[in-house]
Amino acid sequence: MTQHHSHSMKMYGNIKLYAGSGSPDLAQRIAAYLNQPLSPCEIIEFPNENIFIKLKNSARGQDAYVIQTTSSPVHYNLMELLIMIQTIRLDSAARITAVVPYLCYGRSDKKDQPRVSISARLVADMIEAAGADRYMTFDPHAGQIQGFFSIPGDVLTASHMITAHISQHLRAQMKNLVVVSTDLGFAKKGRNYARDLDAPIAFVEKRRVGNSSKAEALTLIGNVRGKDVLIVDDEVLTGGSIEQAVGVVKRNGARDVYLAFVHPLLSKGAAERLAKLPIKRIITTDTVPLPRRKLQALKGRITVLSIAPMLGEVIQRAHEGRSVGEMFNE
Amino acid sequence: MTQHHSHSMKMYGNIKLYAGSGSPDLAQRIAAYLNQPLSPCEIIEFPNENIFIKLKNSARGQDAYVIQTTSSPVHYNLMELLIMIQTIRLDSAARITAVVPYLCYGRSDKKDQPRVSISARLVADMIEAAGADRYMTFDPHAGQIQGFFSIPGDVLTASHMITAHISQHLRAQMKNLVVVSTDLGFAKKGRNYARDLDAPIAFVEKRRVGNSSKAEALTLIGNVRGKDVLIVDDEVLTGGSIEQAVGVVKRNGARDVYLAFVHPLLSKGAAERLAKLPIKRIITTDTVPLPRRKLQALKGRITVLSIAPMLGEVIQRAHEGRSVGEMFNE
Amino acid sequence: MTQHHSHSMKMYGNIKLYAGSGSPDLAQRIAAYLNQPLSPCEIIEFPNENIFIKLKNSARGQDAYVIQTTSSPVHYNLMELLIMIQTIRLDSAARITAVVPYLCYGRSDKKDQPRVSISARLVADMIEAAGADRYMTFDPHAGQIQGFFSIPGDVLTASHMITAHISQHLRAQMKNLVVVSTDLGFAKKGRNYARDLDAPIAFVEKRRVGNSSKAEALTLIGNVRGKDVLIVDDEVLTGGSIEQAVGVVKRNGARDVYLAFVHPLLSKGAAERLAKLPIKRIITTDTVPLPRRKLQALKGRITVLSIAPMLGEVIQRAHEGRSVGEMFNE
Amino acid sequence: MTQHHSHSMKMYGNIKLYAGSGSPDLAQRIAAYLNQPLSPCEIIEFPNENIFIKLKNSARGQDAYVIQTTSSPVHYNLMELLIMIQTIRLDSAARITAVVPYLCYGRSDKKDQPRVSISARLVADMIEAAGADRYMTFDPHAGQIQGFFSIPGDVLTASHMITAHISQHLRAQMKNLVVVSTDLGFAKKGRNYARDLDAPIAFVEKRRVGNSSKAEALTLIGNVRGKDVLIVDDEVLTGGSIEQAVGVVKRNGARDVYLAFVHPLLSKGAAERLAKLPIKRIITTDTVPLPRRKLQALKGRITVLSIAPMLGEVIQRAHEGRSVGEMFNE
Amino acid sequence: MTQHHSHSMKMYGNIKLYAGSGSPDLAQRIAAYLNQPLSPCEIIEFPNENIFIKLKNSARGQDAYVIQTTSSPVHYNLMELLIMIQTIRLDSAARITAVVPYLCYGRSDKKDQPRVSISARLVADMIEAAGADRYMTFDPHAGQIQGFFSIPGDVLTASHMITAHISQHLRAQMKNLVVVSTDLGFAKKGRNYARDLDAPIAFVEKRRVGNSSKAEALTLIGNVRGKDVLIVDDEVLTGGSIEQAVGVVKRNGARDVYLAFVHPLLSKGAAERLAKLPIKRIITTDTVPLPRRKLQALKGRITVLSIAPMLGEVIQRAHEGRSVGEMFNE
Amino acid sequence: MTQHHSHSMKMYGNIKLYAGSGSPDLAQRIAAYLNQPLSPCEIIEFPNENIFIKLKNSARGQDAYVIQTTSSPVHYNLMELLIMIQTIRLDSAARITAVVPYLCYGRSDKKDQPRVSISARLVADMIEAAGADRYMTFDPHAGQIQGFFSIPGDVLTASHMITAHISQHLRAQMKNLVVVSTDLGFAKKGRNYARDLDAPIAFVEKRRVGNSSKAEALTLIGNVRGKDVLIVDDEVLTGGSIEQAVGVVKRNGARDVYLAFVHPLLSKGAAERLAKLPIKRIITTDTVPLPRRKLQALKGRITVLSIAPMLGEVIQRAHEGRSVGEMFNE
Repeated sequence: MTQHHSHSMKMYGNIKLYAGSGSPDLAQRIAAYLNQPLSPCEIIEFPNENIFIKLKNSARGQDAYVIQTTSSPVHYNLMELLIMIQTIRLDSAARITAVVPYLCYGRSDKKDQPRVSISARLVADMIEAAGADRYMTFDPHAGQIQGFFSIPGDVLTASHMITAHISQHLRAQMKNLVVVSTDLGFAKKGRNYARDLDAPIAFVEKRRVGNSSKAEALTLIGNVRGKDVLIVDDEVLTGGSIEQAVGVVKRNGARDVYLAFVHPLLSKGAAERLAKLPIKRIITTDTVPLPRRKLQALKGRITVLSIAPMLGEVIQRAHEGRSVGEMFNE
Repeated sequence: MTQHHSHSMKMYGNIKLYAGSGSPDLAQRIAAYLNQPLSPCEIIEFPNENIFIKLKNSARGQDAYVIQTTSSPVHYNLMELLIMIQTIRLDSAARITAVVPYLCYGRSDKKDQPRVSISARLVADMIEAAGADRYMTFDPHAGQIQGFFSIPGDVLTASHMITAHISQHLRAQMKNLVVVSTDLGFAKKGRNYARDLDAPIAFVEKRRVGNSSKAEALTLIGNVRGKDVLIVDDEVLTGGSIEQAVGVVKRNGARDVYLAFVHPLLSKGAAERLAKLPIKRIITTDTVPLPRRKLQALKGRITVLSIAPMLGEVIQRAHEGRSVGEMFNE
Repeated sequence: MTQHHSHSMKMYGNIKLYAGSGSPDLAQRIAAYLNQPLSPCEIIEFPNENIFIKLKNSARGQDAYVIQTTSSPVHYNLMELLIMIQTIRLDSAARITAVVPYLCYGRSDKKDQPRVSISARLVADMIEAAGADRYMTFDPHAGQIQGFFSIPGDVLTASHMITAHISQHLRAQMKNLVVVSTDLGFAKKGRNYARDLDAPIAFVEKRRVGNSSKAEALTLIGNVRGKDVLIVDDEVLTGGSIEQAVGVVKRNGARDVYLAFVHPLLSKGAAERLAKLPIKRIITTDTVPLPRRKLQALKGRITVLSIAPMLGEVIQRAHEGRSVGEMFNE
Repeated sequence: MTQHHSHSMKMYGNIKLYAGSGSPDLAQRIAAYLNQPLSPCEIIEFPNENIFIKLKNSARGQDAYVIQTTSSPVHYNLMELLIMIQTIRLDSAARITAVVPYLCYGRSDKKDQPRVSISARLVADMIEAAGADRYMTFDPHAGQIQGFFSIPGDVLTASHMITAHISQHLRAQMKNLVVVSTDLGFAKKGRNYARDLDAPIAFVEKRRVGNSSKAEALTLIGNVRGKDVLIVDDEVLTGGSIEQAVGVVKRNGARDVYLAFVHPLLSKGAAERLAKLPIKRIITTDTVPLPRRKLQALKGRITVLSIAPMLGEVIQRAHEGRSVGEMFNE
Repeated sequence: MTQHHSHSMKMYGNIKLYAGSGSPDLAQRIAAYLNQPLSPCEIIEFPNENIFIKLKNSARGQDAYVIQTTSSPVHYNLMELLIMIQTIRLDSAARITAVVPYLCYGRSDKKDQPRVSISARLVADMIEAAGADRYMTFDPHAGQIQGFFSIPGDVLTASHMITAHISQHLRAQMKNLVVVSTDLGFAKKGRNYARDLDAPIAFVEKRRVGNSSKAEALTLIGNVRGKDVLIVDDEVLTGGSIEQAVGVVKRNGARDVYLAFVHPLLSKGAAERLAKLPIKRIITTDTVPLPRRKLQALKGRITVLSIAPMLGEVIQRAHEGRSVGEMFNE
Repeated sequence: MTQHHSHSMKMYGNIKLYAGSGSPDLAQRIAAYLNQPLSPCEIIEFPNENIFIKLKNSARGQDAYVIQTTSSPVHYNLMELLIMIQTIRLDSAARITAVVPYLCYGRSDKKDQPRVSISARLVADMIEAAGADRYMTFDPHAGQIQGFFSIPGDVLTASHMITAHISQHLRAQMKNLVVVSTDLGFAKKGRNYARDLDAPIAFVEKRRVGNSSKAEALTLIGNVRGKDVLIVDDEVLTGGSIEQAVGVVKRNGARDVYLAFVHPLLSKGAAERLAKLPIKRIITTDTVPLPRRKLQALKGRITVLSIAPMLGEVIQRAHEGRSVGEMFNE
């Protein structure tokens, strides 16, 4: 076993962890899990906004992992990720893995109307063009995003970590739990939450009313009367959908309401909006950094689970050439 | 306008239509719509099963469309498509469009468990490797499949044609219509059928029971009691899911049941199974050829709408460089 | 000849001009030159900062030109350019030309120290990955950038337009003109300005002093005593180098000082800094938009020459398959 | 030496052998030679004929060899090979070698008439598109097939194994041996058999007679009168050419007739046809599996030499980074 | 028809013919056939041997044909071809066809021993890397070379032109003609000559004698006694093989001897060697230029057929998008 | 540390050094530095000028370095390099580095006039198409050439070695040293020489006179009167520019003149021309081999510094995955 470790570690040199400025705390937590320092680099934004990156020591022949989430500022973070990958490639690393806990443009994943882009494919192409050999990400909007990449990747989910946390700490107090998905496009993944929690599922359906392009009718499909509700989603941005969903389930007689989602994007005003809703507890993760201000707004009602141990373990196994699937008994 | 036509037609030579052996009747219908003959080719399967294709006349400088559905025999049809594309490319066509009404391996579109393939991406890569410049297909399992291709394509849906047909011919007799999706993965597209027909939506949820990997519990989410039901799906293979769905809605008090789906794959025994179910009418299309035997089994209860006029019009517009989106007021 | 025109125009459909938000006024000027409207598109920035683009009408089979400068906000503008290219490609345009008057990251064009990036190559790769068939740009930092692209391009210079303007309007008042390049890396291009103006050349050399990494000694190589000086550069960002150069030539006895450069990036404070310098006149272009505020700061002393007629003519010729070189008697 | 072994084995992890369903027995023999188990995988053909593959354990960081011959059912076997390669690649293997003892479509290797395909190149492109890093195959129809691949490969021949077997066991009883090639396209390779056996060579030439496209005249070029004859070829499919060749050499006065070929494709009826011919002994290999029924038909007159030890040794050396050429004193 | 012509000619602009320095006379003949001038370019070899090419007028949007044979000086000619292609591509031609009557490195088409190159594939890759969209060539050493290219091509043969010439002018004087192939690798193509001339075929076989690597035994397989012989090959380099073949057929009682081959490479001394042989007439082509000196040596006995009309016609048809196959009734 | 060495060496097998015929002595010196033999290969030029290469032993799984300078005969040497790379790749080396001390076509690095090539990019593409994974070179004409390659490389400079040599052996005798760059395009790199030697810089400017395209005026910018001058350049070909520069500085009152440059191309007559000039000492390197005859012509006045130790050390570090930058304190 130790033998096995030492052998495999030679395949692609040693682990080198690089942190972009999009998720420095998460990078530190991963480094701590792996008991490895972050590799120092100089990152400067020039007056012309161009990003300059210099690695402080050599990546030559090493197994590099660039940890960078692509939440706000999205385009800066994306470009920083790409430049860092290219820099490491030109420095002749043996292998480069783009570790992107939250991958931007995930919702632009198909042409659902004519003459629009599939920006998620463009982002995948850019990551490959920069020189990544592999990628890792969490809970993309659609699982099919794996097919947008030509390179292999580890596409992970934080949902089991979330449902395990709920089972352990909250399930006891939830009576007649119903899981509610806020969007029909999330129906199947919502059902997976429900299955993990051994609860039924219900859905909020939005439909436009009449000719007006703005007015939407909200319908609850399924039954929540007198039941505790866990609203689930992959990400929360403005909180608008959540506000609607809470309203619908409450109008339909729900008892207590909980909320779980993986990516806390929480754009300006979102944390405050959530704070005003009758939600008993919010469970989310650190795929996207939550600034102190937002945490403060939701103080006492939010639990942020860290993906760092899982991601650290995946990096370790990827480096050593060991199975990642067996972490999940698969 | 005529001016415009004649100009554009010169861009990629003239339309040349090629028909694989997977969907000869559809190809004939498209040819009839376009008032163009199919380009003759010799297709031979040698004793070693290798396919030999020879174009009877030159494709040089022309705008070629290879019409080939990839239903059963799937791998033969796929290889025939690829060889035909390569043959036309090596014959120096100006542009080649793979017209694949039903694209195989669509359900293998993501790694939803470790150590499996994304065969739909592989198929896209193969079509590109063979030399296609563009592709056209109908109602793929997931819209994201567009992102699997590097080449542009026209990904069309027959759903509006189906709902338009229902509105015109069947809607009047349907009382309190509810659209039912047989699968949570089809929830959003099922909702689109419902929206077109101005009807509510309900879902059938399947969930494994206990440790047994076989036993499944079926739940109906939403309400169908005393209502007419239209079960919708993108394709029907064995008919097993439809049989389950019909049972569930009937047990939940549905009145009349109708069935609509785009791709009539109908594997061995499926037509007979559907024939035994209490379904008033089945609406489907000719993306996949329905042999006389299957049609016979469902005689009097099945309507097969042809995609040929729509596909012919799309080919015409693609050839002339005119908008396809405006066919759908988009 | 007219005949020839009409023939060629059919090759790639008709010209379609698209304007990104980086240089809307320039795009309008080009459209006016070509007597063609800009093709309308909807460009939205979502709350998650993701850019959404929808073309208002079809680009199918057309010859598309995306006009987008990539000055501030650099990364937003770059991504907008890329998404617009991909959108047009997926809409099956016949040919797409990225028209980028100012191309960002041009100074990151080589590894002049270990473990840094060549971001200019990355940007070229991204433009190609998005699907551009050709590109056009003005006065890149290094001419070699043409070799970073695999696709053909028209790399133009505004320097002749600038020197022609000076010859016509300012040369008479300049006595014993000496052209001064602010940087040794610009020596050869500075010499070309001098040659066009039939004047000698001199250089400002910067060299670090001692061990301190900040202190720089400035040396003037060549002679400006009692002469009028035209300081030339390809771009001005903070104005710091210009301030130094003006100081050096003044200390070396120069009479009047003029300034010419192609790309007026003018970061925050730069216009004000230039305004304070003893410069008689500044000549620049509209490759980068100059907001009213900056123009105001330099009021009466700045001349902005438009590249629109030249770029419009190049687009016209590229579209028609006619020589661009002959515009410049080459 | 052991030292050397252990070093090299770390380069691409450990050997992992995968067996497709095209050649399971051969795969077992190779596994036995290498003293390595076959890596278990689940291979299912769904009712829609789509192939589903799941690796039972992880290939991450390993040196994978996919053993799959592409004889009948050709297109199924080919697709299984491709999906297996993609599955292993997406599971992040360090290196993947497609081991295809018999490579289909080898005879479609050039356009010898207009408007036909070069399917062998298409197959090579498909194997590369699926993600293979290397390939191994035996006695392709033309050696030039190596140039169809962009990836390196080991293209092996079983001919020396066959002639060595003949020299050891049959040569003594052969009087005045003449090697006869059944096809002029096999002239050079037939000569190599003759050289190995120190015998002269003769050829059967087929030529069409008159305008009829069917009638062929057979000519024997060279002399076999009163001599024993070894007919050689790379593959035998229907046995028709062999039947003709036996007839020609017998009519030209040959004594005993033997037959040697590498790939026993033997389509329906071929074994029975060969059984009726006056052939003393048939020597072939297991690049293509010979079902019991066919072996039975040729009982007592056929010798099947196994390529497993040679292929196993090549895999071992490829894995360890040792010369394969030195196995053949080259 | 005229209509058709004019339409197609617009697809890729107008024909532009470019001549490398490898085959200027042939290029002139093609230009004469097409009634088109050669496009002027400046080609300079600098003192550092680097080749500089400047097109004298624009290729933008045109259909360019670069005519360059790659015989001696081989590497200069090859590089000139590549640079010319890149120059035309960077000048934004609509389509570029590499017209290479004799393609170098054709005999390095497979690894027939370990650790050697497949240089013919490398040459194909280089032509594609330079930017050719199509290629044309004559009688490559192996037809499979078509599979080395990813781009389409027209691979032509001059053999029918040669046999037609012989039938018309020489066949009458040939008694009991036998066609003799000098090499077993040319057996099948030699047979095609024989079939065209309705004559039997015979072969010269070379085999090493004993352990000495130099001594070769020559065997004639087939019968030439008292017959006229036409020796055929694809190219003649040193003339050594021809000298051997003439010796063998004469020793075996042949009457008159003729010689036909496509590519007259004729390295230093070869023409003189052929001149000394008892050959009644030599028929070859101008795929490779024959300098006056060599022609002189063979004066009165050599006929050089020009491929220019055939190649000109193929270019015309390729440009217009018309069938090339129908030139050969295929 | 030793531990570290042995680990890393396993990554890509062992170092294998290959020497092309362009720089055999340098290759020997590198081999001596690395204490490794050159891997034997057979290199033959056939009568048709085609190059044949056979590796004498296997490169399978090894870390190959092909040492080949591409000076005269340029095209032969370039093709030999490419074939050697392909041969090693097809022999399944683990990694291939093209070590090209002098890279040809470096001056063709941009389109500085219309309708010319960027041959340096073509050369980079060819090296990649042949299969190199990395490259190493010295002092390219422009640093931007790094951006022409998609593969990583080590672009080294011999300038510090040259200035260190001057500082140690010649600086003491140089009075009031001024560094003079012969070309404005070399201004920045000339300045780097000056900075290393703590001396001022001056430039020779060439400008065409009047309409005559030949007559050039030479101007010295900066001051050399009464000073010792070191003329610097990256390469010397005919010696014409040096002759001019020496004349200019002498006419401007320079005292002693020295000359330093990296690449001693020295075309026919150049050594003799230099020999006649009043240059006290010439310092150059062995990136290009200097035949005895040329050395003789410059006897006593030329110092050839060897890059072999530096290049050997870089190869060693690249092989072991250690920093190259730290060799230069970067």
